Amino acid sequence: MTRFIGVEHVRRIVTATGLTQFYRLLAGYLEADFRRWPEFAKRERIGAYSPGGVIELMPIADAALYGFKYVNGHPGNPGRNLPTVTAFGALAQMDTGIPVLLSEMTLATALRTAATSALATKYLARPDSSTMALIGLGAQAEFQATAFNAILGIRQVRAFDIDIRAISKFVRNLSGTDIEIVPCANAAEAASGADILTTATADKTRAILLGSDMVAPGAHINAIGGDCPGKSEIDEDLLLRSRIVVEYELQTRIEGEIQYLALDHPVTELWEIIVGKEPGRTDAAQITLFDSVGFALEDFSVLRLLNDLSAETSIGDKIDLIAHPEEPKNLFQLLLNDAA
Amino acid sequence: MTRFIGVEHVRRIVTATGLTQFYRLLAGYLEADFRRWPEFAKRERIGAYSPGGVIELMPIADAALYGFKYVNGHPGNPGRNLPTVTAFGALAQMDTGIPVLLSEMTLATALRTAATSALATKYLARPDSSTMALIGLGAQAEFQATAFNAILGIRQVRAFDIDIRAISKFVRNLSGTDIEIVPCANAAEAASGADILTTATADKTRAILLGSDMVAPGAHINAIGGDCPGKSEIDEDLLLRSRIVVEYELQTRIEGEIQYLALDHPVTELWEIIVGKEPGRTDAAQITLFDSVGFALEDFSVLRLLNDLSAETSIGDKIDLIAHPEEPKNLFQLLLNDAA
Repeated sequence: MTRFIGVEHVRRIVTATGLTQFYRLLAGYLEADFRRWPEFAKRERIGAYSPGGVIELMPIADAALYGFKYVNGHPGNPGRNLPTVTAFGALAQMDTGIPVLLSEMTLATALRTAATSALATKYLARPDSSTMALIGLGAQAEFQATAFNAILGIRQVRAFDIDIRAISKFVRNLSGTDIEIVPCANAAEAASGADILTTATADKTRAILLGSDMVAPGAHINAIGGDCPGKSEIDEDLLLRSRIVVEYELQTRIEGEIQYLALDHPVTELWEIIVGKEPGRTDAAQITLFDSVGFALEDFSVLRLLNDLSAETSIGDKIDLIAHPEEPKNLFQLLLNDAA
Repeated sequence: MTRFIGVEHVRRIVTATGLTQFYRLLAGYLEADFRRWPEFAKRERIGAYSPGGVIELMPIADAALYGFKYVNGHPGNPGRNLPTVTAFGALAQMDTGIPVLLSEMTLATALRTAATSALATKYLARPDSSTMALIGLGAQAEFQATAFNAILGIRQVRAFDIDIRAISKFVRNLSGTDIEIVPCANAAEAASGADILTTATADKTRAILLGSDMVAPGAHINAIGGDCPGKSEIDEDLLLRSRIVVEYELQTRIEGEIQYLALDHPVTELWEIIVGKEPGRTDAAQITLFDSVGFALEDFSVLRLLNDLSAETSIGDKIDLIAHPEEPKNLFQLLLNDAA
């Protein structure tokens, strides 16, 4: 039997652990895996494209464990009352190929995306950063706010969305937290005075959300939403003013904000900063930009954490996903069992 | 909720349908999908290699449906009482990206591999073929025998394996069928007088099972086992004597028997014969060889069939694999549900 963690199991695991503690554990798993970056077999994701969106597989492996995620991105889905992004994934042992975990990953992706933004911000933002701007209050917004609160102690969020209902959803969902929300009338107002700026929209067209004139020296930007070819959220002039950090250069050159820059425009991979191979922020006036498209390593980390917490809390199920005949070469016998 | 078909569900679906009828339906689904070959977005599988074996993802899609399979191949697994090959897979809607089916695929792969061999054999063997040789009586053996019996009416199987226990397992498992088994002392004896020859071993080294002198003019060969770089079952001289048919040339050049031949050695893709673009067997003395490595289209077909039969028979479960918040952009609310 294979361990199965469904949507309700993730909710119960996060609730039992506490959201703040879950994020701190997840940041630790992410940081530990980013430190082992050279040990992983990595590749860009594998997409299947249709007019409505993309379905992707994101595999990764080290010597001991293999992980992959199935994830879709269909911007028209909310119009049919379906989520834009859904996901699930698995972990398997490299030495035997046997899957050990199948898990929902819609919630897990939202959690790991936010924790990864906070981890990058820890290495790149000014240490005295206290205010965050959040532009785009869709499915990822509350995860960003709560992860930055848990991992970096951010208490004030300047929030903007073109959809007024998204702002009230955001305020309502965070009412039980100590996060102070400042609703803003536009992106420029949200950005004004923010130490950290996160853009997280799902539109797949090239809609510029953040102009260069909105961003003061010393800011750190997380560009989360620009995760496919043809998509961008950040003004080109702002990109050129920024020190750019990416997860996995090969993939980000195709999908990230930097797809509009020259192929040799310098970028730093996050793991290089985490292990100390490259410096983080070099001066207080520098603008740093984490061009985040999401990478398989982050899925690997959150799957590891969910697997460990499921074992600890006994929250989860077992499903008979994998045939295990009594004699390994006698698979056919499984079809005959009812005769016995 | 997502439909889930586990190992026990597949057994029950096959039992309720009848194995013979299941194979005939599956051959129909396979043939229908092979006929639509140009409509599919295809690629070679994506492997993660370790000293013990390989883990692969095999995606494919047409305009309506996306399918993928996770599958491993670890020849040392039986020594640890684990199956060499295990698999699971999924189907999803291309227009929304929402998964509709998660299924075990260890049994499903064995069933589709055998049905694909029988389908290819229908187009390539002499119409008067009545005797089959089966060399390698591992996990795939009984599936081959029963599929050829169901789809082509083959009643006699000349069987050989280096492991005597494999022969008794094979005889025992097929005792309730009308298949006559002729146990043979070696591969040459099994091949002698056989109209159809199938090789299906799991060893990953270049061990030649079938020499050219063992095969008479007019035979059809299914080379099933040679499914990775460095693996081969068929003597090079026999390959050169044969008309070679493959599933997907791009993948078979890497993994199949033909990896040892010149890159421009002529091969025909099976779909071209099925749609009538290329002829099948052209004369009674021709040796035809189906160099089968397994292709994602076959997984797509068996997943479609299992999905349809699960709906018809109500055999299967639902699992909460995919988050479905009440408001599509309010994913965070799913984490708060227990407070409500």
